Amino acid sequence: MFGFSFDPNLSKEEFYKELTKTLRALVSGQRDLITNLANASSLIYHALNSLNAFKTKPVNWAGFYLTAKDNASLLRLGPFQGKVACTEIKFGRGVCGAAASTGKTQVVPNVHDFPGHIACDSSSVSEIVVPIVSPASGRVLGVLDIDDEGPEAFGEADKAGLETVVQILLESCDWTE
Amino acid sequence: MFGFSFDPNLSKEEFYKELTKTLRALVSGQRDLITNLANASSLIYHALNSLNAFKTKPVNWAGFYLTAKDNASLLRLGPFQGKVACTEIKFGRGVCGAAASTGKTQVVPNVHDFPGHIACDSSSVSEIVVPIVSPASGRVLGVLDIDDEGPEAFGEADKAGLETVVQILLESCDWTE
Repeated sequence: MFGFSFDPNLSKEEFYKELTKTLRALVSGQRDLITNLANASSLIYHALNSLNAFKTKPVNWAGFYLTAKDNASLLRLGPFQGKVACTEIKFGRGVCGAAASTGKTQVVPNVHDFPGHIACDSSSVSEIVVPIVSPASGRVLGVLDIDDEGPEAFGEADKAGLETVVQILLESCDWTE
Repeated sequence: MFGFSFDPNLSKEEFYKELTKTLRALVSGQRDLITNLANASSLIYHALNSLNAFKTKPVNWAGFYLTAKDNASLLRLGPFQGKVACTEIKFGRGVCGAAASTGKTQVVPNVHDFPGHIACDSSSVSEIVVPIVSPASGRVLGVLDIDDEGPEAFGEADKAGLETVVQILLESCDWTE
């Protein structure tokens, strides 16, 4: 049994310091990609929602899309927490597709204002998507996608913290290209 | 967006008829194993918890363990919904391991009475585990595991319904052996 708890009053900066420490412990001794992404989704989802900062605007989806092995410009749904989701997203389409095609983190205060937004869950309002970029080849291997029911849930601290989360997952899992 | 809703008053027999119909629609046109198991976990978790039958004793974990490619007697965590879980379970250990080693569905009214039970989440009381058996080779490819916070949450109707769910996933996904 792997237990964790976070002080709900942590600032986001303090929270991500704790989260990344917990994630390192969670994936230590295990390199299977799907196993680690499944547990990482659960950790991120439940940890964020334990914070007071997310009490009135909960995270409703947290998980991964992975670049398809048979199509280098297609994302396919990977492990996640939340409601049933879109199975495929083309690079360039919506917020996930923008992160995949640019290789840059997308922080979207209100998805309804985002051109080409794909509504997988109508209760999502704000979103952050961090691309997973291979340090060896520079290829985008997938994205970490988090949706929230309120506007402007994510900012610079989330971007920095979740980019570190992706870095840990890049180092700790066996990714295939 | 893939929407679904179930009448909360359905009997379990009626519910599983609806659930399997919804699952067939959800996986149609998609054969990626991880994508389909991720969405199936979410469908099962949210659908069961929408029923009045599970109102006082909610499902707290629903997902998959897959037989490791590098060790034919080891289960590794796959896509799921719920709290962070054990990453590896040996065939023969606990309820998941019993399903994997016998190839038979395990319906456990109270996990605390089950010899060798592995507590991934202390709030789990009852559990059902359905093995995923290759029709070609007879090998166990993984298990579908569902935990509930109350005792005796699962019975014959769940066993029959969830064995059909596994059958659909065997037919609709590209499994590798």
